[in-house]
Amino acid sequence: MAEATQPVYIRVDAVTLKEVVKRILERVEVPPDQAEIIADVLVRADLRGIESHGVQRLNTYYLNRLRVGRISPRTEVTVVRRTPALAVLDANNGMGQVAGVRAMTMCLEMAKQVGAAAVVVRNSNHYGIAGYYAMMALPHDMIGISLTNSQPLAIPTYGRKRIIGTNAISVAAPAGEERPFVLDMATSVVPIGRIEVFARRKEKVPPHWGADETGKATDEPERILHGGGLFPLGGPAETSGYKGYGLSGVVDILSGVLSGAGFLTHVFPPSDPQGRPSNVGHFFAALDIAAVMPPAEFKTRLDQFIRELKESPKEQGQDRIFLAGEKEFEAEEERARYGVPVNAAVLEEIRTNCRELDVPWPFPF
Amino acid sequence: MAEATQPVYIRVDAVTLKEVVKRILERVEVPPDQAEIIADVLVRADLRGIESHGVQRLNTYYLNRLRVGRISPRTEVTVVRRTPALAVLDANNGMGQVAGVRAMTMCLEMAKQVGAAAVVVRNSNHYGIAGYYAMMALPHDMIGISLTNSQPLAIPTYGRKRIIGTNAISVAAPAGEERPFVLDMATSVVPIGRIEVFARRKEKVPPHWGADETGKATDEPERILHGGGLFPLGGPAETSGYKGYGLSGVVDILSGVLSGAGFLTHVFPPSDPQGRPSNVGHFFAALDIAAVMPPAEFKTRLDQFIRELKESPKEQGQDRIFLAGEKEFEAEEERARYGVPVNAAVLEEIRTNCRELDVPWPFPF
Repeated sequence: MAEATQPVYIRVDAVTLKEVVKRILERVEVPPDQAEIIADVLVRADLRGIESHGVQRLNTYYLNRLRVGRISPRTEVTVVRRTPALAVLDANNGMGQVAGVRAMTMCLEMAKQVGAAAVVVRNSNHYGIAGYYAMMALPHDMIGISLTNSQPLAIPTYGRKRIIGTNAISVAAPAGEERPFVLDMATSVVPIGRIEVFARRKEKVPPHWGADETGKATDEPERILHGGGLFPLGGPAETSGYKGYGLSGVVDILSGVLSGAGFLTHVFPPSDPQGRPSNVGHFFAALDIAAVMPPAEFKTRLDQFIRELKESPKEQGQDRIFLAGEKEFEAEEERARYGVPVNAAVLEEIRTNCRELDVPWPFPF
Repeated sequence: MAEATQPVYIRVDAVTLKEVVKRILERVEVPPDQAEIIADVLVRADLRGIESHGVQRLNTYYLNRLRVGRISPRTEVTVVRRTPALAVLDANNGMGQVAGVRAMTMCLEMAKQVGAAAVVVRNSNHYGIAGYYAMMALPHDMIGISLTNSQPLAIPTYGRKRIIGTNAISVAAPAGEERPFVLDMATSVVPIGRIEVFARRKEKVPPHWGADETGKATDEPERILHGGGLFPLGGPAETSGYKGYGLSGVVDILSGVLSGAGFLTHVFPPSDPQGRPSNVGHFFAALDIAAVMPPAEFKTRLDQFIRELKESPKEQGQDRIFLAGEKEFEAEEERARYGVPVNAAVLEEIRTNCRELDVPWPFPF
């Protein structure tokens, strides 16, 4: 996507945006109920300010591959094996969002029966924001966990080759009067898109974000992008990057090795030149709070946890301490009301999709 | 513990060390089977090279408090609530190691029945290395998870006060021909003991390990120790320290908020001047691999995962890529054979314990 150094953003109504994405997906043979899920996950990312996983990925991650049959438009999730608290699903190279919602729904039902459950998924594709699925636990008074592996973009400690994914971790827990706690993070220091932004602006990146082609920390974004790679959370070994590397390994083992999906370099990027199925793996888990204590009691306790953190003394020059997910909830509330800012170039792509697929363009510009 | 800038280490036989620790514990009314567990967890830490959680903590974390009745010498773990896949235990202010082994044993039994399970523990004390309990899953062909909260030593992102623990995460998965994958990490960049070592040597610490009393990164260990605190994994916000802060929150929510134990500053240090019960919380989980695929198949896959990482190109100047737990397994093999290096000052403390508690000193020096 060509982009000026300062991209132009246009605010659009979230409901309308979701509707047009849904209709575009339907035109490439995605069933309406599944198109609804995919559009909801994508627009939810934009609402929450996680642009890197929003509608800007519609073409590159999904539509381009759906249109040439490299992802199955009709996602048929099959149950490979099932015990009361652990199940394995096969997404049969369908859409990750549909597989994710199906798996987490099943996981929540199982946890309701036996107190806790986990579901792993193989043969899937990029599922968008990990937090979407973890948050599905919240209305059920459960704690939700969602992990996924991804194409390799980061390097292991003491390595120099991109062999590990930015493997995401999300955990959501319901509060009472406060907003829920929702951690949703990649296990790399930053996403690759952040490096690309610095490269376009021809600016140096902060130290410890990535390594050059020799595996050493560099502040030159071009070297991270070409030949080097992202550091796992923690940066180089000196600042304990091996912990982020270890966490990335946990995510890959649970969502890739255990599920029967790809792992390491066997997870192929959405833009794989050879068009191989991505074979992404996911891991979902749910804990039913009612099995431990009355949910109201848990929520009161989590409120206290949140307040004590927020009311704690601040770093000099800072006036707020944030809880995981707080900025995203604030963005969501503001954007649901005033519109979602979408990159003008991305809106043009959507307009082209509408024209090519005979979907009415819904915006007044 | 007084210590020269370069402490002297003496190698002692691990079995003998464990036996003398066990006998010391028995003399302060710990039942023999429980003393066996505690001694095993402590010496296992020294064997694995995790000195900070080994026998050097015998007095400060355990014995001093056992001798004045601030920890119950006889750990009676009660089952508060139990469903097939989720249970809550109360350690009744007993020893964390005994509660941990009891909880993980129960968790493994539950996972064998229903495929996956979690057990949370309240009213516990410092349980030593988190990895001990996660590794209990390995001989059962399960993946083990062990989390614990701890006394507050780290600061939240944009904060300046020690309000969050170094909250540990351990995940263990069995391999075939390779060593198991065992992540065992604190969610702070480094443990507080590492800062103390630099302070004693009057050396600067690397940037991003900790903050001074204003919440800003500092390289002065004395300011981190007095008034400041440890950074969560990732360091300050610029290098994504909010991710480590978020992970620390997940550990505290699962092991403290959910279990009914203390959390944040309500987990009291072993050396609490007011002698309050620590009220540490733990979280354990197990996934039965056989519920997903034949364990032999999983192990072959994990072997492949491990080898592909190890055989990946190295950073310039490095000749090995390590897997989580690998250094610890190598240390354990070497030390089981040639003896565990124990700080001479710590051995003197043990000698004093022996004299005071009428336990024969077993070493030939």
